[in-house]
Amino acid sequence: MMHSNVSLFINSTIHPFTLTIIYQRLNTDHPRTFKFQLETSLSLSLSLSLSLSLSLMASIPSTPLLANELDIVIPTISNLDFLEMWRPFFQPYHLIIVQDGDPTKTIRVPEGFDYELHNRNHVESLLGKRASCISFKDSACRCYGFLVSKKKYIYTIDDDCFVAKNPTGEDINALEQHIKNLLTPSTPHFFNTLYDPYRDGADFVRGYPFSLREGVPTAVSHGLWLNIPDYDAPTQLVKPHERNTRYVDAVMTVPKGTLFPMCGMNLAFDRELVGPAMYFGLMGHGQPIGRYDDMWAGWCVKVICDHLNLGVKTGLPYIWHSKASNPFVNLKKEYKGIFWQEEIIPFFQSVVLPKECTTVQKCYLALAEKVKEKLGSVDPYFAKLAEGMTTWIEAWDAHNPSSDATGSLANGLAKVNLGK
Amino acid sequence: MMHSNVSLFINSTIHPFTLTIIYQRLNTDHPRTFKFQLETSLSLSLSLSLSLSLSLMASIPSTPLLANELDIVIPTISNLDFLEMWRPFFQPYHLIIVQDGDPTKTIRVPEGFDYELHNRNHVESLLGKRASCISFKDSACRCYGFLVSKKKYIYTIDDDCFVAKNPTGEDINALEQHIKNLLTPSTPHFFNTLYDPYRDGADFVRGYPFSLREGVPTAVSHGLWLNIPDYDAPTQLVKPHERNTRYVDAVMTVPKGTLFPMCGMNLAFDRELVGPAMYFGLMGHGQPIGRYDDMWAGWCVKVICDHLNLGVKTGLPYIWHSKASNPFVNLKKEYKGIFWQEEIIPFFQSVVLPKECTTVQKCYLALAEKVKEKLGSVDPYFAKLAEGMTTWIEAWDAHNPSSDATGSLANGLAKVNLGK
Repeated sequence: MMHSNVSLFINSTIHPFTLTIIYQRLNTDHPRTFKFQLETSLSLSLSLSLSLSLSLMASIPSTPLLANELDIVIPTISNLDFLEMWRPFFQPYHLIIVQDGDPTKTIRVPEGFDYELHNRNHVESLLGKRASCISFKDSACRCYGFLVSKKKYIYTIDDDCFVAKNPTGEDINALEQHIKNLLTPSTPHFFNTLYDPYRDGADFVRGYPFSLREGVPTAVSHGLWLNIPDYDAPTQLVKPHERNTRYVDAVMTVPKGTLFPMCGMNLAFDRELVGPAMYFGLMGHGQPIGRYDDMWAGWCVKVICDHLNLGVKTGLPYIWHSKASNPFVNLKKEYKGIFWQEEIIPFFQSVVLPKECTTVQKCYLALAEKVKEKLGSVDPYFAKLAEGMTTWIEAWDAHNPSSDATGSLANGLAKVNLGK
Repeated sequence: MMHSNVSLFINSTIHPFTLTIIYQRLNTDHPRTFKFQLETSLSLSLSLSLSLSLSLMASIPSTPLLANELDIVIPTISNLDFLEMWRPFFQPYHLIIVQDGDPTKTIRVPEGFDYELHNRNHVESLLGKRASCISFKDSACRCYGFLVSKKKYIYTIDDDCFVAKNPTGEDINALEQHIKNLLTPSTPHFFNTLYDPYRDGADFVRGYPFSLREGVPTAVSHGLWLNIPDYDAPTQLVKPHERNTRYVDAVMTVPKGTLFPMCGMNLAFDRELVGPAMYFGLMGHGQPIGRYDDMWAGWCVKVICDHLNLGVKTGLPYIWHSKASNPFVNLKKEYKGIFWQEEIIPFFQSVVLPKECTTVQKCYLALAEKVKEKLGSVDPYFAKLAEGMTTWIEAWDAHNPSSDATGSLANGLAKVNLGK
């Protein structure tokens, strides 16, 4: 039997009352953290033995870390009944709901969730003139939620995304996997053929330079989708019945210098590390383009992560994407993007940020300059977008006067222990 | 019911007699090829209906393509009993066995395999003075097999690798998966988050530039290992009991500009595209280093593939790696490599090949020059290695007077149809 060191932390500042147990197997570097909720009265005896066996620990359902350090941002135009399915996983967290479209409409949020809801009136009132940088009638408005959050981490999810099951039929706790991804390093400088070397049962393979094994801090965790894949309109039209049924049990770092299509449906990031780069652009109402909000953010954030030596991971966790959007509507939104991206991608592949850009804000402003200069000739839209990017940084700085580097106890512990 | 176009090809040049059926579903671009062996007498009625239903086709076990176009190269010092387990998959192919160590020893090869066996005497007699470039007492000698092959494709495997099972308990036909990997394009210029876009049930995701969706020809297919992972000696020493049990159902392209640790245990490649770059260096007897043969080949081949716009894939298929090599012996072989690689990797990450290098041979000779120039100061070994690289190209060209661009019928068909 394996012996364990167990520490108890009781945190009564959030509701419902939570009890966190962090224990570390004596013969490994990997702490395992379990948290379970007690319903209002502390019915569980605190005489819990401190020498719990591993088998007992394994039977306790784990729930996510960082409840005080992470906000869940949900852009929506309709009632949030989808939260019912997420209740076991999301209830300990604070939700920031960004209501898109008609602000007079009432959005129903299931009972028992801790949330704040912002509609267009709130956006205008908080940001004033700068509200112009927040898209309207497009899920790009979600980045307003990133701006008003005061937490270190963000998870954002679409309201047509449900809990997926892993191949053994268990519900996937997507948020827990994102947190694991964010709290362990990335390896952008060299490819590890056994995927994430920090996962249990994996490591760096022969030939992986030892000097690169510490990795770099992870800024972004990009999760995937079972059922409806995230296809563009032309592919949707050509393959209306294609479903993603392949569960790929891997997390990997997108290598330095390589761009990827970042989807905003199931995405987590470290707001302190890259928050100001997570701008979802000008899309939807009054704009010539849609459905490129997350792509734009992804290209910008990847280039900035590469410059600042931060990591971007993709792979697990999966969510269940329930419904395909209308391909005809999508085509209308996308078609300019489809040819513009043929010029945007080479721009991002070749852009070099000046060495003086040592913060995300400086990087982002330099990128906005270059967008105006290099993409302005593609379409006048890009000059406007570059302006939006600058306004976004002004708004970010106005509402986030200084980076807050303090972390909670749980977070601090996790950072120390979860890496190898 | 789906209708199928079925063509029959009868190939009697190999033993056992094989019957290949290639059919293409009318409404897809994907041909599916099935081959089944008839035991000596043609007992199967050739009145086989040409309008086979899809369900019937699906019940026929598939075996690999390209039997006349692929050699299997096996370096060994012992009897090849491991081939018994591979019989259903390897028997249609020609084997090139490279016997390492004492040439007077007799290597037993199970009955029924079509093979040629080369020992050190054959190497010396064929290559004369140039035999110095072929390592002795090290599995690096396998590249001699690549040189003497006359086929378009090579699969190389170690003799401690057995047939692995997929998660549903079926034997994995590793060679068939490698062939699929090689016959479909790679996508080194942009990361696809749903992995190989050419697999059934997958595609390019939203935001993937259309101009990059044709991909580039695939030169290398790097397969993985269940059970004993390919760890270096320090990791073996620290984690003697770690086993790889995670089956990751993915194939992906290693992005352009990213190096990876290429393992020679379970590796396939297009010899016409990159054969001359698959030199496994100077290792083992009389050399200061071992266990970096495949790594060296991998770094060289990746840099050359990036330069020539060719692709390298990694992931499926898995083989079952049965026994861990001795970590103490390995440490002795590796220790110089462990610190040398800290200078080798930055060299390969920054090396730029001249534009005039339009063939693999020219690339390789230019690389040899740069190795001598830039790594010569690390250790005199690298000047010797650079010489070995040059000698290897001389030997290659002497025995492969001109690239043979002709492909077999099956191969030609596959090339036309397997891509999207």
